[in-house]
Amino acid sequence: MDLLSIKDPSFLKKMNNQQLEELSGDIRKFLIEKLSKTGGHIGPNLGVVELTIALHKAFDSPQDKIIWDVGHQSYVHKILTGRANQFDTLRQYKGLCGFPKMSESEHDVWETGHSSTSLSAAMGMAIARDVKGESSYVIPVIGDGALTGGMALEALNHIGDSQKNITVILNDNEMSIAPNVGALHNVLGKLRTAGKYKWAKDELEYLLKKIPAVGGKLAATAERVKDSLKYLLVSGVFFEEMGFTYLGPIDGHNFDDLFENFQYAKKTEGPVLLHVITKKGKGYSPAEDDKIGTWHGTGPYKIETGDLIKSVNKAPSWSSLVSETVRYLARTDKRIVAITPAMPVGSKLENFAKEFPERMFDVGIAEQHAATMAAGLATQGMKPFLAIYSTFLQRAYDQVLHDICRQNLNVFIGVDRAGLVGADGETHQGVFDIAFLRHLPNMVVMMPKDENEGQHMVYTAVQYDKGPIALRFPRGDGYGVPMDGTLTEIPIGSWEILRKGTDACILTFGTTIPMALEAANSLEKQGISVQVVNARFIKPLDESMLHDIFATGVPILTIEEAVLKGGFGSGILEFAHEHGYHNATIERIGVPDQFIEHGSVKEIYAEIGMTSEAIKAKLTKILPEQKKRA
Amino acid sequence: MDLLSIKDPSFLKKMNNQQLEELSGDIRKFLIEKLSKTGGHIGPNLGVVELTIALHKAFDSPQDKIIWDVGHQSYVHKILTGRANQFDTLRQYKGLCGFPKMSESEHDVWETGHSSTSLSAAMGMAIARDVKGESSYVIPVIGDGALTGGMALEALNHIGDSQKNITVILNDNEMSIAPNVGALHNVLGKLRTAGKYKWAKDELEYLLKKIPAVGGKLAATAERVKDSLKYLLVSGVFFEEMGFTYLGPIDGHNFDDLFENFQYAKKTEGPVLLHVITKKGKGYSPAEDDKIGTWHGTGPYKIETGDLIKSVNKAPSWSSLVSETVRYLARTDKRIVAITPAMPVGSKLENFAKEFPERMFDVGIAEQHAATMAAGLATQGMKPFLAIYSTFLQRAYDQVLHDICRQNLNVFIGVDRAGLVGADGETHQGVFDIAFLRHLPNMVVMMPKDENEGQHMVYTAVQYDKGPIALRFPRGDGYGVPMDGTLTEIPIGSWEILRKGTDACILTFGTTIPMALEAANSLEKQGISVQVVNARFIKPLDESMLHDIFATGVPILTIEEAVLKGGFGSGILEFAHEHGYHNATIERIGVPDQFIEHGSVKEIYAEIGMTSEAIKAKLTKILPEQKKRA
Repeated sequence: MDLLSIKDPSFLKKMNNQQLEELSGDIRKFLIEKLSKTGGHIGPNLGVVELTIALHKAFDSPQDKIIWDVGHQSYVHKILTGRANQFDTLRQYKGLCGFPKMSESEHDVWETGHSSTSLSAAMGMAIARDVKGESSYVIPVIGDGALTGGMALEALNHIGDSQKNITVILNDNEMSIAPNVGALHNVLGKLRTAGKYKWAKDELEYLLKKIPAVGGKLAATAERVKDSLKYLLVSGVFFEEMGFTYLGPIDGHNFDDLFENFQYAKKTEGPVLLHVITKKGKGYSPAEDDKIGTWHGTGPYKIETGDLIKSVNKAPSWSSLVSETVRYLARTDKRIVAITPAMPVGSKLENFAKEFPERMFDVGIAEQHAATMAAGLATQGMKPFLAIYSTFLQRAYDQVLHDICRQNLNVFIGVDRAGLVGADGETHQGVFDIAFLRHLPNMVVMMPKDENEGQHMVYTAVQYDKGPIALRFPRGDGYGVPMDGTLTEIPIGSWEILRKGTDACILTFGTTIPMALEAANSLEKQGISVQVVNARFIKPLDESMLHDIFATGVPILTIEEAVLKGGFGSGILEFAHEHGYHNATIERIGVPDQFIEHGSVKEIYAEIGMTSEAIKAKLTKILPEQKKRA
Repeated sequence: MDLLSIKDPSFLKKMNNQQLEELSGDIRKFLIEKLSKTGGHIGPNLGVVELTIALHKAFDSPQDKIIWDVGHQSYVHKILTGRANQFDTLRQYKGLCGFPKMSESEHDVWETGHSSTSLSAAMGMAIARDVKGESSYVIPVIGDGALTGGMALEALNHIGDSQKNITVILNDNEMSIAPNVGALHNVLGKLRTAGKYKWAKDELEYLLKKIPAVGGKLAATAERVKDSLKYLLVSGVFFEEMGFTYLGPIDGHNFDDLFENFQYAKKTEGPVLLHVITKKGKGYSPAEDDKIGTWHGTGPYKIETGDLIKSVNKAPSWSSLVSETVRYLARTDKRIVAITPAMPVGSKLENFAKEFPERMFDVGIAEQHAATMAAGLATQGMKPFLAIYSTFLQRAYDQVLHDICRQNLNVFIGVDRAGLVGADGETHQGVFDIAFLRHLPNMVVMMPKDENEGQHMVYTAVQYDKGPIALRFPRGDGYGVPMDGTLTEIPIGSWEILRKGTDACILTFGTTIPMALEAANSLEKQGISVQVVNARFIKPLDESMLHDIFATGVPILTIEEAVLKGGFGSGILEFAHEHGYHNATIERIGVPDQFIEHGSVKEIYAEIGMTSEAIKAKLTKILPEQKKRA
């Protein structure tokens, strides 16, 4: 059918299963074609085509609340709720968001991006429904990977206890972003292979009847055995113990199976967990055959071959640079262990894992545990390297504060994807870490100007033994600069003058250095001499250099690809006033006090005024009068 | 025996059970006496006397790592490791810490305060042990309440999967701080009442042997039944499913039972969970009979009667003021529901719970879930009141950011115990919330000057419908000021001039207002006229008033009982430079960049320079020259 003509999911109600299957094929074709041009989360979405259709047929969105955990698997939902015509703009500036977005549709009842929030949201919505005396279904759809997140387990616990009517869909795709880890996964593994519950229960009931009656006590025991047989045989026991009615396993690509179980779930009082088995990438063989997560989310690709269309870049990715340097150092430094919360591929730790399998720990989606486990390691003289995206480090804020910084432990935090991240948008911007790390006592925070300085910073972090140290680095690739053969320590808190100048001074670091230099070079032609400093330590500041700079009395401009409130620039303001430089002219450029949506980094730069032009304008404004006239 | 003579736990090795029981009695007597004077966590410590003694006899600390979750139950451990002579100074300034502290003893291998960190720490220590090829036991001791925290569940999952040798002691005292909630608690409830595993298993094995052989398939099924009997009968199934060997339930006050199971645990490969049943307050009847948590932690008390020695104070506690005002408003505003993460008593929500049981949710120790559930409620037009201590809100930072602020939802966060907290110390100081909330887009943060303004702020928060709003308030009681009969809205972002002045201006809020006024009054006598502003909105600032103040050019002093880095004062610096007031003299007083240990708030104030004297000195320093000479 013409997917572009879909306005809302009501058309599904009249379709029979054969028509739904045809629709599934159309949607798969549409997704494979569209995403081959825009890129996106192809694997997860191909896996939930039938599940999403079945949900929208069996339930009545938006009265019934379908909540997509993580949310990158909501493309089919977006098609069925009238957004097929926007897929050419997927994940692009001002285009269709790659995650649920309330402003796009009334069917998006909850926005996501980070994992494991759907069950708590569902509980909130179920309470609201019951307090208001309304009647509707609340249906969180959560993956097996997301289920290992602590807050999902907190919510399972609360939901099971409360016995609220909530219909949890466990979308078990047998492969989350990385091969799954954890005991929970083992439980799910058992579920997958069981599937013979009815048969065996009958047989056993027959057997148990043959046991002679042996008085009160034993009869009671036999009864308990009987009641518990279903636990034994399908091992749905984990969820049953939590207070859920467990249904499954259900073939997530079979409409009969899905509808039958949805009907049963609707009639069941209390929380239900439907264990739906899906296959990521279903219907597109390159994605189906994916074992390591390449097709979880991709850039554009050639449909026929599945070859990814990549821009040629000889420079290493930042993640690779950092993880590979850690691997190199781990050969001689036995204290080093690496920890990732479910991002071994994104953090480029595959080689480390191969070379040091016994020193590599993928803890699953469990950022809190990852951070505190790193603290535990450090108490024993180890040097844990915690590889974590800036946006996900938010979830371990208390652990970094209470366990790592407060105990002043030697944990090396590799803060990946720091700064703007582009297409993932709002939920994934790495713009808060400076503001939430800078106020933690004992914490060192640094960011390199290029990958050569990056490798020295990795070395510096590994050598540093006075407490926690965070190395932030951006998403994407380095510049391809020449790399030193020998690693050297960079003195903690030391900055570097990249360009001398006498009329003004720019303090910046990392990704914003090139635009600062460009602005300075341009102003040079107008006779204005601007100093540019690589303020590579965000904490501690280079106080000695700062005193020198303030002593000259030149106006200062700080630039950071991070939130302005409480950020690096605020640190400079604090320093100035703390040391009595009350007359200093200081201006700041950075991310304003609003959430930043998706779009290319360049487009976002332009939107929020982080360009060499904007820098020039800001500098010109604060220059002394005689220079302005020049 | 003379507890003061204990240097380390080695003396226990030679003691028989009768001697250990005598020792238990001596320790209980000591604790009851000492804590009657100092106050402290009496209930939890009386509950673990035998358990702690048994651990120190059966294991070899500090080679074996005993990790106390939360840590307020470590008093017996402190006595056995040579610190009995410091109990007169318990929780006092420069005295014995109420939690484990590495600087106090090599037997304190992990510092705590916040809940649910012990399992992650244990995993880190176990990995370190194995990577280094060493051999030791790692023994986290975690309560049933702490087990509901998401990070504990993340860690259980990882430990179970990894099959590391870790000896988890589940200290199930049948009553955590508040009557426990959650499905996990129900599982534990089943365990408590089972206890007949061995007997029944034998019986059933006998029965099963009587079942005639019926060929391959059925024999296999019968085998599965047999293997699973232990699951059935003690319901240790939850932990067994997670990959742990479950031992218990064990009588935590019986040395025979404890030692027998410790021996078995030592010989078991992989992770073991020992389910130890203890009674909080054991051996002191007022504490034993406690049903609501009064004896969890107390101030001084009369030993004979158990009467708490309280200072007479007619003013309401801040928690009570806020929760009772919410309760009053909930009578007419049906949107209001209250949420607490395991602190219904501390947050004074008992009356709310009684009056609105269906609108009150104690989610257990699960701050992340609490915050996101509040967000879910708000999406449905409800007005959730999330009552949470400042220090515990740290654990929900990402949820406040990603779920509440990013979706701009009407959640009312009551930030209790904001500022310095006194005896609980380092791990519990509520000094970070301004720095971690202020940089979140859409967030409003306010703090009242007294309880009358507090009640109006509660009303303001409930009426506010433009996004999240946080009301911070301190630990302890109000001032007993007269209370208005009618509640009124305070315009968002509006400050109030408390005292006019022309030579300098103090911007402050909440608890530091009295010292500011005192300083101003004192300077008045020296002919210096200081304006004092109640800067009750920390975000947004009162920009109109700020422009007026900056226009006068007077020096400005900000005071906040919170970290300086990224705090309120930084916000004033940001405002000044953003609006071109580059010549403004601004000084800040607040909590320096270090962790603040326990002690009375007054003592800490003196230590960190937050006194009216310090304010006067700072003000005098920044006054214009002619005034300084005055």
